[in-house]
Amino acid sequence: MTHSRPAPRPEIGQPILELSTPLPLIDETKLAFNIARVQSYMDQHGLAFRPHIKTHKIPAVATQQVAAGARGINCQKITEAEVFADAGFEDLLITFNILGAEKHSRLVALNTRISGLKVVADSDTTVRGLSCAFSQSRPLTVLVECDTGGGRCGVQTPEAAIALAETIAAAPGLSFGGILTYPKANTEEDVEAFFAAVIAGLSARGIPCPIVSNGGTPSLFSAHKVPSATEHRAGTYVYNDRAMARAGHCNLDDCAMHVLATVVSRPSLDRAILDAGSKALTSDLLGFSDYGMIVEYPDAVITGLSEEHGTVDLSKVTGRRPEIGDKVRLIPNHTCVVSNLFNLMTFHRNGIVTRVEEVAGRGLVW
Amino acid sequence: MTHSRPAPRPEIGQPILELSTPLPLIDETKLAFNIARVQSYMDQHGLAFRPHIKTHKIPAVATQQVAAGARGINCQKITEAEVFADAGFEDLLITFNILGAEKHSRLVALNTRISGLKVVADSDTTVRGLSCAFSQSRPLTVLVECDTGGGRCGVQTPEAAIALAETIAAAPGLSFGGILTYPKANTEEDVEAFFAAVIAGLSARGIPCPIVSNGGTPSLFSAHKVPSATEHRAGTYVYNDRAMARAGHCNLDDCAMHVLATVVSRPSLDRAILDAGSKALTSDLLGFSDYGMIVEYPDAVITGLSEEHGTVDLSKVTGRRPEIGDKVRLIPNHTCVVSNLFNLMTFHRNGIVTRVEEVAGRGLVW
Repeated sequence: MTHSRPAPRPEIGQPILELSTPLPLIDETKLAFNIARVQSYMDQHGLAFRPHIKTHKIPAVATQQVAAGARGINCQKITEAEVFADAGFEDLLITFNILGAEKHSRLVALNTRISGLKVVADSDTTVRGLSCAFSQSRPLTVLVECDTGGGRCGVQTPEAAIALAETIAAAPGLSFGGILTYPKANTEEDVEAFFAAVIAGLSARGIPCPIVSNGGTPSLFSAHKVPSATEHRAGTYVYNDRAMARAGHCNLDDCAMHVLATVVSRPSLDRAILDAGSKALTSDLLGFSDYGMIVEYPDAVITGLSEEHGTVDLSKVTGRRPEIGDKVRLIPNHTCVVSNLFNLMTFHRNGIVTRVEEVAGRGLVW
Repeated sequence: MTHSRPAPRPEIGQPILELSTPLPLIDETKLAFNIARVQSYMDQHGLAFRPHIKTHKIPAVATQQVAAGARGINCQKITEAEVFADAGFEDLLITFNILGAEKHSRLVALNTRISGLKVVADSDTTVRGLSCAFSQSRPLTVLVECDTGGGRCGVQTPEAAIALAETIAAAPGLSFGGILTYPKANTEEDVEAFFAAVIAGLSARGIPCPIVSNGGTPSLFSAHKVPSATEHRAGTYVYNDRAMARAGHCNLDDCAMHVLATVVSRPSLDRAILDAGSKALTSDLLGFSDYGMIVEYPDAVITGLSEEHGTVDLSKVTGRRPEIGDKVRLIPNHTCVVSNLFNLMTFHRNGIVTRVEEVAGRGLVW
């Protein structure tokens, strides 16, 4: 038996409409615009900007973000951080409570080879574990994660943040680096009040608080309304998606990611089936009742996804309807989870492939 | 700068509760039970069984299924089929309308090196494309996909199925292989009526119909109620999941896949945060209003997922509540999409790692 050809991989110079599907694509022009627009806003307001790599998981894209002026990068997992450290990034914040001997051991190794590693903690348990792991090593910088209303991780009050900061500052092997939140959208006053109370309390105790980190693409263009913040973190803005456009954070035309799909069946007048299902788009709804938008047929509705099929209701489409073999471009509800499904990402300019990047930060066991 | 250690990979012999998280795990005992149970049912009813590899995408698991008596395997994409052909599988059905020159070219190559390749079609357009591609090659076997009520792909009537079968039988480069459906659950009478009408019509025209293929894990233990079928296809049964258990197709204890997760934060009395989010579980609900079940805390509710966090409501948990650092096992709503997120799958028996398999069929560009 002979073996298969190498796995398919788009080639530089190919027209995207000739590529096989389903395939996520990034428009270089929109990507560059999104990076420049946000960096310009941050520069204008004197805020450091720290892109979250969760959206692309590609070192070359982070390089573009840093070249535009970003201060450092934000990762969510140690394995992601390792991939970006290997690519030469030094200022690297992991916004996660890191627990367990195996992760601690890798974190110690990472902290010995890059200069600007930082993590967060929101409990004595997390801090104690980090302190034990780092007591014989180069100190690790730890920020206190604050729940300013987002309802996920974080200490619940400014008093608890101050207490945990004191614990970190006193812990062997650790250095207190500041405070951080992932806020609910449109709660800048709450974030500022929380941050200001912590900063005042720390100041009264003589504890410096170098980093005050706010975050989120939904809060991005309101970042200046949190004057205590020294930096802002955001991921989704780099590609943008249908959910960001609906919320007014970008235009639909700023969505750099499209998923190219083919109409593979037209079982009836009102039904088309695409070759993009939940294994190409995910089933993330983010408040929508359908699974993405078809650029060429904005009145078509992707009513359901199975794993490799998208079911489209064409009943509201006036004029020409898509035929079997037609290629269409989908704007996903949520771009970050689409990146996470594919080993390779294809970039293009004006419809011609410019590069194919490995999504190097995805799929690792943890 | 030194480089990272190799990416983390569980080791044979490790206790699973010592492994870092989030991590999907397969229980070898339950896997073997699920395979044996379904094969035994099929054998009892004289039905050929064709497992769908979409659920695991791992050749070694398909080998177990075939060793138990499965007739062949079912793939959904050419790139998956290539991976399984490379692993030695010969009887391989791709249940998808395959369109486009690049895919046709790979399909021709695949058909020259394995003996039992089969695909489906539901339109003249798909058949015409295949016929052009295969007119100078070894003939390709094509089945007609029928929509017996599932509402996805498929010709809409038995008459249309007969007409398309005639087209295939007459097309250069193609050989008519039979008929196929992916039915709605609990519609065995409709499936049988559709199949019987097609078979009668083909018989009247002197066209043999060797394969009559029914499918779906939800229809699995009703497969004998479709006497015209010669084979049944199913994927999910091999691991099972919360949706299958709710529908009565297995017990919760038959779910071979657990996602091991760690409690990383306890911001308040009623809230726990896990390190498993939509990039470990996906946001597939499949009719549930929450995102999976915690084996150790069945009264806890995973109310929301962000990409790397799961938010758990503990308000209904009586007795001990999970603490920071505790590991828990999650039964995902939908197992097939979890496999698709990770490069490696970890298997264990009685909590001790037995093997780590590459999820070889996932993540390819199409």
